[in-house]
Amino acid sequence: MNATVSPDWIAVDWGTSNMRAWAMTSSGTVLAEASSDQGMGKLSRDGFEDALLDVIADWLEGPTPVVACGMVGSRQGWVEAPYAATPCAALPEGMTAAPTRDDRLQVSVISGIKQAEPADVMRGEETQIAGFLALNKNWDGVICLPGTHTKWVHVSADEVVSFQTYMTGELFNVIAAQTVLRHSVATDGWDADAFDDGVSIAMARPERLASRLFSLRAEGLLNGLDGASARARLSGLLIGAELAGAKPYWLGQQIAVIGDGGLAGHYVRALAAQAAPATQVNASAATLAGLTAAYRRLKG
Amino acid sequence: MNATVSPDWIAVDWGTSNMRAWAMTSSGTVLAEASSDQGMGKLSRDGFEDALLDVIADWLEGPTPVVACGMVGSRQGWVEAPYAATPCAALPEGMTAAPTRDDRLQVSVISGIKQAEPADVMRGEETQIAGFLALNKNWDGVICLPGTHTKWVHVSADEVVSFQTYMTGELFNVIAAQTVLRHSVATDGWDADAFDDGVSIAMARPERLASRLFSLRAEGLLNGLDGASARARLSGLLIGAELAGAKPYWLGQQIAVIGDGGLAGHYVRALAAQAAPATQVNASAATLAGLTAAYRRLKG
Repeated sequence: MNATVSPDWIAVDWGTSNMRAWAMTSSGTVLAEASSDQGMGKLSRDGFEDALLDVIADWLEGPTPVVACGMVGSRQGWVEAPYAATPCAALPEGMTAAPTRDDRLQVSVISGIKQAEPADVMRGEETQIAGFLALNKNWDGVICLPGTHTKWVHVSADEVVSFQTYMTGELFNVIAAQTVLRHSVATDGWDADAFDDGVSIAMARPERLASRLFSLRAEGLLNGLDGASARARLSGLLIGAELAGAKPYWLGQQIAVIGDGGLAGHYVRALAAQAAPATQVNASAATLAGLTAAYRRLKG
Repeated sequence: MNATVSPDWIAVDWGTSNMRAWAMTSSGTVLAEASSDQGMGKLSRDGFEDALLDVIADWLEGPTPVVACGMVGSRQGWVEAPYAATPCAALPEGMTAAPTRDDRLQVSVISGIKQAEPADVMRGEETQIAGFLALNKNWDGVICLPGTHTKWVHVSADEVVSFQTYMTGELFNVIAAQTVLRHSVATDGWDADAFDDGVSIAMARPERLASRLFSLRAEGLLNGLDGASARARLSGLLIGAELAGAKPYWLGQQIAVIGDGGLAGHYVRALAAQAAPATQVNASAATLAGLTAAYRRLKG
């Protein structure tokens, strides 16, 4: 079978839920893109190679470097890539080779980053940070990466100085779907004023979060608070409490929020309400720039 | 069939998950006790009478007053009993009759209590509070009722002045079982030092709660934090954040914690570490005393 494209190398972003791959030229041009729902969470160690070939086999003629980031390098992944310890370069030295049967594949997995105190880890975000820094030379400040586990990262002189992970996204999901608030919070819909209120209330008294959450239920029972407003207020309360906790990170700093769509936009809006303007950055562009920087270092 | 006991009235505590009933003399002596797993959450409106008869039919000879508290009086319960608004007596005026087919049953349901701002509600706890006050005349102070939704209640001159509900228990359950922390937190086991650390850390910086939660995962990955310690630390973090939020309630007040077993004991321990001694009170005794006070008022 003839390859539809002939990439010099292949970039892979392999998270817990999904995998994306790009066929790349050595100069960094994207020739093709493909994806799969075979995330790390669905695969056992010996399933990664076939899952990758399902997506990229058409792109392979001869031996081809593959550079991968994300949970593919976790203990439950294809191969365990080590963590570099802060302070360190966003793209730590060295990559870890994943074992392959198909000799066309030369897979290198990017290391994660760990912090000793308070204990914290990242995998995948380091690549987005490296990409952002490749696109924004000599940038110092704080990068926020919203998601299931939102990261706040202090970057200076091209190093990750320290970081802090908030389980805000995952808390939103379980609180909205698995607690008594499931009766009060709609599964979609939005109310920007309710979001702003939530941010403001939680910023002022973050220690009352668990009580403000129950108030959503009580306001539904007593005042008929509608489900979309409750949903937006819940998001605002959780993000507001996070902004209160992460204030030593963002206060007075240059801020970049790496992420697409609604969630990253909510963070930018909440920060703006604290007089902290933030730049929103496309996540795929940052990931791809980071994987490209890793490939270039691989080729020397 | 001859009744095994002949109560003057029957006390019922009917919550979301379970129902308990006591056969009582008019002077307040318990003749018999029975329970069922047919909580409000499992019943439709027309199922309550049969569920009650399954438990107490043997106790009925002629018409018998039944006094019930808890979620049986909610909108999804047997009959919707109103909420009295704070400030109000712990046992609000008036009870609501539940419709029955069996004319031996004369069922009265105790009202809940609501608060307008911040919006809050209770059902069942008001009866425990009334019982505690019946057993402790002229008691002023703050009552903590730990549970799925822990209540902090300011009581003065036999009235509920205000209250605050924290979803701490429910948050513990969903975080331990449904988030990434399920890989780090054991389903049982305990470590008192880890609990104390969690309380102390969260009291100092309650706004960082969602970050401290992720640290449990990171410490499991990096430092091999064991599951029982992670479980106790998680509980300590959540209770510590709650104590920070509820501080205006308990600081400098006489404190009673109504509840049995481990959870109430954890609250007493956490408060003691803040130099706030609290008395632990048996929950069943408080409930029964409150139902008895309601029965006495019913009989004039």
